[in-house]
Parts: sequence; structure tokens; C-alpha cells
Amino acid sequence: MVKKVVILGGGFGGAYTAMYLEKYLKKTKEPFEITIVNRENYFVFQPMLAEVVGGSLGILDTINPLRKLLPKTQLYVREIDSIDIENQKVILAPKYSHTPFDLPYDHLVLGLGTVTDFRGMSGLHEHALPFKNLADSINIRNQVIEVLEGAANETDPLLKQKLLTFVVGGGGFSGTEVVAEVNDLVRKLAKQYAEIDPSQIRVVLIHSKDRLMEREMPETLGRYAAMLLKKRGVEICFNAHLKAATPEEAILDTGERIPSKTVISTVPSSPNPLIESLPLHLERGKIVVDAGMQVEGWGNVWSIGDCAAIPNLEGGGLCPPTAQFAIREAKVLAHNIAASLSSGERKKEFRFKALGMMGALGHHSAVAELFGKFKCSGLIAWVMWRMIYWAKLPGLDRKIKVALSWALDTMIPIEAVQIKASPTQGIAQLHFEADEIIFHEGDVGDYLYIIVNGEVEVFTTKDQKEKLIAKLGKGEYFGEMALLNQRSRFATVRCLSPVDVLALRKSDFGVLISNFQELRKDFEQTEKTRRREIG
Amino acid sequence: MVKKVVILGGGFGGAYTAMYLEKYLKKTKEPFEITIVNRENYFVFQPMLAEVVGGSLGILDTINPLRKLLPKTQLYVREIDSIDIENQKVILAPKYSHTPFDLPYDHLVLGLGTVTDFRGMSGLHEHALPFKNLADSINIRNQVIEVLEGAANETDPLLKQKLLTFVVGGGGFSGTEVVAEVNDLVRKLAKQYAEIDPSQIRVVLIHSKDRLMEREMPETLGRYAAMLLKKRGVEICFNAHLKAATPEEAILDTGERIPSKTVISTVPSSPNPLIESLPLHLERGKIVVDAGMQVEGWGNVWSIGDCAAIPNLEGGGLCPPTAQFAIREAKVLAHNIAASLSSGERKKEFRFKALGMMGALGHHSAVAELFGKFKCSGLIAWVMWRMIYWAKLPGLDRKIKVALSWALDTMIPIEAVQIKASPTQGIAQLHFEADEIIFHEGDVGDYLYIIVNGEVEVFTTKDQKEKLIAKLGKGEYFGEMALLNQRSRFATVRCLSPVDVLALRKSDFGVLISNFQELRKDFEQTEKTRRREIG
Repeated sequence: MVKKVVILGGGFGGAYTAMYLEKYLKKTKEPFEITIVNRENYFVFQPMLAEVVGGSLGILDTINPLRKLLPKTQLYVREIDSIDIENQKVILAPKYSHTPFDLPYDHLVLGLGTVTDFRGMSGLHEHALPFKNLADSINIRNQVIEVLEGAANETDPLLKQKLLTFVVGGGGFSGTEVVAEVNDLVRKLAKQYAEIDPSQIRVVLIHSKDRLMEREMPETLGRYAAMLLKKRGVEICFNAHLKAATPEEAILDTGERIPSKTVISTVPSSPNPLIESLPLHLERGKIVVDAGMQVEGWGNVWSIGDCAAIPNLEGGGLCPPTAQFAIREAKVLAHNIAASLSSGERKKEFRFKALGMMGALGHHSAVAELFGKFKCSGLIAWVMWRMIYWAKLPGLDRKIKVALSWALDTMIPIEAVQIKASPTQGIAQLHFEADEIIFHEGDVGDYLYIIVNGEVEVFTTKDQKEKLIAKLGKGEYFGEMALLNQRSRFATVRCLSPVDVLALRKSDFGVLISNFQELRKDFEQTEKTRRREIG
Repeated sequence: MVKKVVILGGGFGGAYTAMYLEKYLKKTKEPFEITIVNRENYFVFQPMLAEVVGGSLGILDTINPLRKLLPKTQLYVREIDSIDIENQKVILAPKYSHTPFDLPYDHLVLGLGTVTDFRGMSGLHEHALPFKNLADSINIRNQVIEVLEGAANETDPLLKQKLLTFVVGGGGFSGTEVVAEVNDLVRKLAKQYAEIDPSQIRVVLIHSKDRLMEREMPETLGRYAAMLLKKRGVEICFNAHLKAATPEEAILDTGERIPSKTVISTVPSSPNPLIESLPLHLERGKIVVDAGMQVEGWGNVWSIGDCAAIPNLEGGGLCPPTAQFAIREAKVLAHNIAASLSSGERKKEFRFKALGMMGALGHHSAVAELFGKFKCSGLIAWVMWRMIYWAKLPGLDRKIKVALSWALDTMIPIEAVQIKASPTQGIAQLHFEADEIIFHEGDVGDYLYIIVNGEVEVFTTKDQKEKLIAKLGKGEYFGEMALLNQRSRFATVRCLSPVDVLALRKSDFGVLISNFQELRKDFEQTEKTRRREIG
């Protein structure tokens, strides 16, 4: 039987392991099969994602089709349902049929990275934009353009200020890069809107420590980055966490509330849920492996990249979750798997000393530390950043495209166009904090709300006096009156506690009640009772 | 008071009217305000959309930001709630608040085009991809890549064939262009998939007449186009309509059923619902206007482009709904509005003789008829097509980008990467035809289904004998058993008639029942009863 190597995840760890394994495939006398499972059919060159937000790179410039990168590897673009380590197989979720698909393996590589995790942070799941993959970058860019369009025509000054305020949570590597790009983007695009006063734009970075990128960069460069961002108009809140978000504001653990329609969070990432359920030894959420990346207790299971706790033999501690390390890890891992398969060679240990760290800070500036000694910043670091990462881009055509985009970017001014590929969802989950108003008497009736958690009060106002109509809690709904009567809101709804609601669009509500007699009757009954109460 | 001209719609008609009005603004002594309302903040160069599907153009190459194109025009990127002709105002739907916004006008231009309309065609709304705007092009491209990925790993030969079959409904201009691009795209990309046998690919064009583009092209060129498409592997069904679609097949009015996972429809477009509700005289859905584009009975309401019935003084009948005409109409309309505003000048009538018609047929071929005499096809027509449309692209930077993309396209092979900007929707509407199976006993329980229309039977199979469990109809649901018990399907569900269902994803079902006690009880009660029936 031909041996099967199955790799889960097509990031730097997974994709490069496959790439190096393909090289062994050329040399070996005992051929094996390589299979990779990934959610997308492309590999994303993560370090350049922030540039997609900023628009100096085109949307497809940073991605490489996996099939092209890995011509000898079998690719499955599928969700993984579960991993069955005892029986040596991976179960893929069904896609076009209702039957799952079993993928047996002889060697398994877990390169699943981390996932964004907003547990315990109210409203972030609903209202904060994560920054992790290509879709996130596109969403952030779209959102920036969306609020600028909204602000351009907004007559309510408070709402306008909210639309022009951008909050980024997390001042590590990716938070710093993304706030720099967002700041550049907003300020550049705003010039195209005559109705937007540049002084109204607020871009706020929230960081839990007292300096930026404290884990990745020496203090001098962290301070330089903060100085540079401030000079460009970014406000930085040190020693604060983004604690919660609502459709109207970002809430810090210091108690500060920042009214904003755009909250981006780069902070929390936790292990992939697939890994959490496996009978493996985890350390702070990462899979414990030896220096050869073999998983403790399983001779044919390996782990690489962000989801593995790989001992850093050169630097001490664990290997950092960076592309630089993942690529080198992949080379050793491919060797070790090939060695296990041919059973002649010895396994190697992973040893690598980081060459340095670089972070881009928007247009024409960056910070870098090389070989632990040489530090630089500003334009020199930026040119170096582009050169080094450009050289690392896999594939000649990718290099051409990125070079062309960079060239075009200097000639053609940036354009504020959005890509709307899919319609927005019919049911949205929203989070509100205590005292926030969900809607006002007289507003347009556009949504029905169902309370998932918390309590609200419904009241009308006459001669500036509030009259309480009802208090509603978990499982109860409101907003049906205006929808059933095709008119504006009869009353105001205010939160008595933090509240989670499901919001159902008017059109979807229409579909539901026109199809379900009983639901309709139920809504109409409630509506009648409530109308009597309003009087 | 400064007079206000409000233009609804930013297509060729609306955008070019604003462009020409801006020129009058420079000359006039009595300045007026121009406002345009559009769903997107960009203008789409429609004739090149098919190339976005095919990938010879980048996603953003065909679009121009409206603010850049129209520096002196106020832009609202908003949905239109309604038009109040009596009180001379347009009401915009709320976006970031719950309050609608009134836009008063002195002159109103209706350039709202047409909308895709699948009424009366079962399942097309749910399962056919329209081809009308940029998002549609991106969706079609994504879908083609998605099914190729699916087909590559599919072991069931019937499902694989379905995944590799592409059906396009409508052989007019856009249908012919899009089938050519889809055919090129599929066959080119398929070469990158070792597991796909090119001979398995089916691309089918369905057309109601006996030749292609019979309204737009002379017979010889229509026949040439059909011959060319056939040579490239497209099957053409003449004299047939696409009547219905399900997740599994396209159904023709001839009774033929084509198993396919990709159905594209270019056929039905109907007037914008906003127009249907206005007190205006309509003729076959279009607004009746005079040759000066003034709406019958309203001195300050005008209409242009696809939504207007403009008498064609040169050719007879009505002006065709093409970009060529809309651009020229816009020039006359801008003059007429400016004339009305300055009250000195006389209005003009729209007179224009079409220069010719061209249609692209995928890579390196096209058909064209110029000045009613000169016909050409193949490479010459294609080069001409590109030259003429390239010259018409508004803006120098757009010209540069398109030229670059075309150049790159010849050098760098096409890439199969999808853009997934948003997650897929939680609730999907599905249409099935009689006898189709919704799911089989033993399948994974991934969705809960609610019947909106039609009847299904639920049965189990033992020793090859079917045992009927239940017949379910409108308002009833099924599929909850597997979801509540976290196991595979207990029974098979088959349609007794055409059936419409709402499908709720497992995860969304989980959210619903964990939040709503009563719903949960209800589901559990049903589940218990049914389980007893299954025995």
C-alpha cells in the first residue's frame, strides 16, 4: 500500500511542509501520497494582508492557488468535521451531498493555526471585525468605505462623528500594521469627500501594555512606532483592553466608551476547536510536540506552526508563531516525515535563530530589527520590508503582480470602491450595553428583535414624560407592531442590562409570517395586547 | 433657492446625464445642484462584465468610483424607499439610523434600469445565478471554481457529472457573452485539475428562439456565433425555455431535465418595483416619455435608459436598451434639463442611429455589425471589440488598468481563486421538483427544513421495502430528529409535488432552540411522536 500523508491546514506551516515533501517525492524509491485539506483553494501570503486593507495591493495579489503551488499534492477544499486519531482518519464535512468523507492517513500533520475567539468579550463577535484572513481584509476595507459614504451625507453631527471614528483593539504586530493601514486609507480617501472635515476623523489604537509590539520588537522600535503613528493622527490608549462592543460604541475596561461604527479587533486567538477535542496533550492551547515536531505519544502525528508548542532550542521557550519560523519548521518536518516513511534516515531537531523582525507602518515607513543588533526605521526599513517579503513571495507570477500593483499604486490614486459579493445576512445578532436605545418612538420599523439575553424596557414619551409600557426579557420579542402595521415605531426600547438580540429584517419577517399561520396568529395576538397597553 | 436635479440610478443613463449636466454647470449663470442616488459608490462598465467572469479582467478593472467621475455631484449610496412625485421628493431608506431621509427635487431623472425577475419560474430565484451586475460576475466566477474543486475530489460519478455541468438560460446578448466566458473559463481551469476529465464537462446554452441574438444581430452573425460556440464545446438547445431549477437540476419547458449544480439565467428582467408603484403611464413595464425624455404628464420628471420607453425617431419603435443609446440619450437629456432650468433655450428631441452592434465570444473571437452593412467575426471583430470599448472606458487610469490586465492575461495563466467576502447565509430557500429526494436515510443531519409550499413524504427502507412514516405539508417541518439527537438521518424525505422549503443550518438551529424554550419544547414533542411512528 502507498503510504498517505495528510496535512490539515494550508498556511505557512502546512503549505510549505507539502512543498518540501514534494521534493522528497522526487528522490524517494518508495513513493507516498500527499494530501492537504484547506478551507480555501489558495495560500495567503499573510505578511502582506494589511496592504490589501490599505489598497496598495490588489485583492488577489497576496494569494497563490494551492494546486499550482503544490502540483503533486491532492487538495481538498472542505471543512473538517472531526479527526479520529485512534482509527487514523480525518472526516471531512459533506458539501454537495449529505454524506461525510473519510480520509485515512499513515502520517497526519496538524497545521490548523489559531482561530479568532471573542468568548467572554460581549458584543465583539457581533460587532468587531477580526483581522486574520483575506476575507477579513476585504471586509475591513469595505467597512471603511461604507462609513465614509455614510458620513458624507450624514446631517446628525453625533452620528457623523461615530461614522468617522475607527477603533483597533490590540497593539501587537498585526494590530499595529492594520491601524497604520486603516489610518492611511481613511485619511487619503476622506480627501475625495468634500463633506468630510479631516479634523473629525479619529483613529484609536487600544493596547493592553505600555508600549507597542512589546513581544516582537525592542523597546526603542516600539516607541518609534508609537511616535510615528501619533504623528500621523492615530490616538493610542495604552494599558487598556477592548472589553465590549455594541453597534454604537467600543467599550474599554477602563470604563471609557468610544462612540464608533467601526471596531477592529486583532487580539484574541485561541486553538482550533478541532484540536481541543483531541486526546492530545495541550499547553496553553497548543499541541505539545518534541523538537522534531512529533506529537507526544503518537508516532505518526505531527504538528507545526501556530497550533504547535515547539521548543525553541536556539532562543529558549517556544518557537514564535511567525511565517519566518513556520517556513523553516516545514523543512525539518518534511525531512522527519520522509525519514519515518523510508525508515532508514534519522529524524532531525528544529533549530533556528530568528534573523530579525520587521513591521510595516503604512505608506513609506516600517520598523525592523535584524540579527538582534541592527535596528532601523522609517523609509529604509520600509524599502527593506518590501524587498525581503517580495523576495519571499512564492511563484514568479505572484512577484510580477505584486510589483505591478506597487508600481501602479504610486501612479494611480487610491480608489474608494467596495466589493459586495454576497447580500447581507437576514438574521443578525446584536449586542447592546445597559442604557443604550435600540430604537426610538417614530423610527422606521425595519427589524423584529428577539431577546436572547438581558432585559429591556419599552416606553412612550408624551409631554417629555416617559410612560413605561413593558419590561421584556429572554425569549421575548419586540418591534413586531411597526412591522405588522407598516408604520413607524410606537415606542422606544431601552436596555436595562447588557442585551443580546437576534434582529430579523422586515422582508424576512414577512416571509416567515406569511408562511406560518401559527406564528402569524401569535404575533398578532401579542401585538393586540400591547397596543391596548399603549392605549 | 438653488434648483435641485436628483438622478436615481448610476448606470450609463444616470451617470452620463450627471456628467453632461456638470458641463452645463460650468457655463450657466444660474447654478443648480446635481444629486445622484445609487446602490453602489461606483459606476460599472457593463459591456466588460463578462470578462470579469472569465478572468481576463481583474475584479475592480471595470468599475469607476462615481465621486471621481462626477466631482460636482452629490452622491448618496443608499437604497431608495419610495418616490413621492406629488410632493416632489425621494425618500431614502435609513442606513445607520432608523430615520428615513427626504431628498426634495425640482427635476427628477429616473434611470433605474431593470431588475432580475424570476416570478413564475419555480426555483430560479433560489438556485439560478443572475448575470446583471459586478457582484453577479464575481458570484458566477466563484461558483465555477467551487464546483471544480468539488468535482476534483468527488467519487460518486453522478454527482461529479452534475458538478461539471453548467447551464445558461437565454441566448440574447448577455447570455451568449457569458456562456462563452464560462465555457472558456471552465475548460481552461479544468486543465489544472488532474482528476477532471475534460470530456465530462458540459456547458449548455438554452435559448427560446431558433438562433442566437436574434434581436441584436443579423442572422448570419447569430449563426456564426452558434457555430463558434459549438466548436468550442458548448451545447445549444434552441426553442426551449429554462422553466425551473432545483439544487440538483435545470428543467426545460420541453420536459428535458439537465442534472447540474450551476444554473445561470440571463433572461427575465422587469421594471424596478419602485417604478411600478408610481402614478406614471407604463408601456410593457417601461415609463412612457416623449422624444425629449420628459415623462407624460409631469413637466419635471424625466426618464432614461432601460427603464424608459423612448421613441426611436431614426430607427422606429423604441430605443434599444444598450449603452450606446444610453450615453447619447444622456447628452440630450442633460441639455433638456439645463434648458428647462434656464427657461431660455428650447428642448431637443433624441435622434440617433445605431453605429452597429458587437458581441464578444470569449477569448479571441467576437461578432460585429457596423453601420448596418459591414459584418465581421472572429479575431478581427474581437480586436475591434476591445479597441472600441477600451476607447469608451471613462477615465485614463481605468484605461491603464484594463490595458495592463489584458497584457498580464496573455502572460500569466489564469488562476482559480475564489473571493469569499462574506459567510454564507444561515437560512436558505430551496426549491425541489416532484420525486426529488431532499435527504436520504443515513445522511448527515445538517439542516432543519420548513415547508413553505408543497407536500413531501417521509419513509424508511427496510429489506428494500419502503415504509411510509408521514406526509407533511405547508407550515410543517422535518429534519429535526437528526439534529436533536446528533446523529444521521432516520428516514428519507421525497417530494410529492414541487416543494419550497426554508433550510436552517444546524448551527443556527442550535442557537434558536437554545434560546427559545417554547420552540425547543415544540420540536422535542414532535420528535418524540415521530420517533414512535418510526418504531
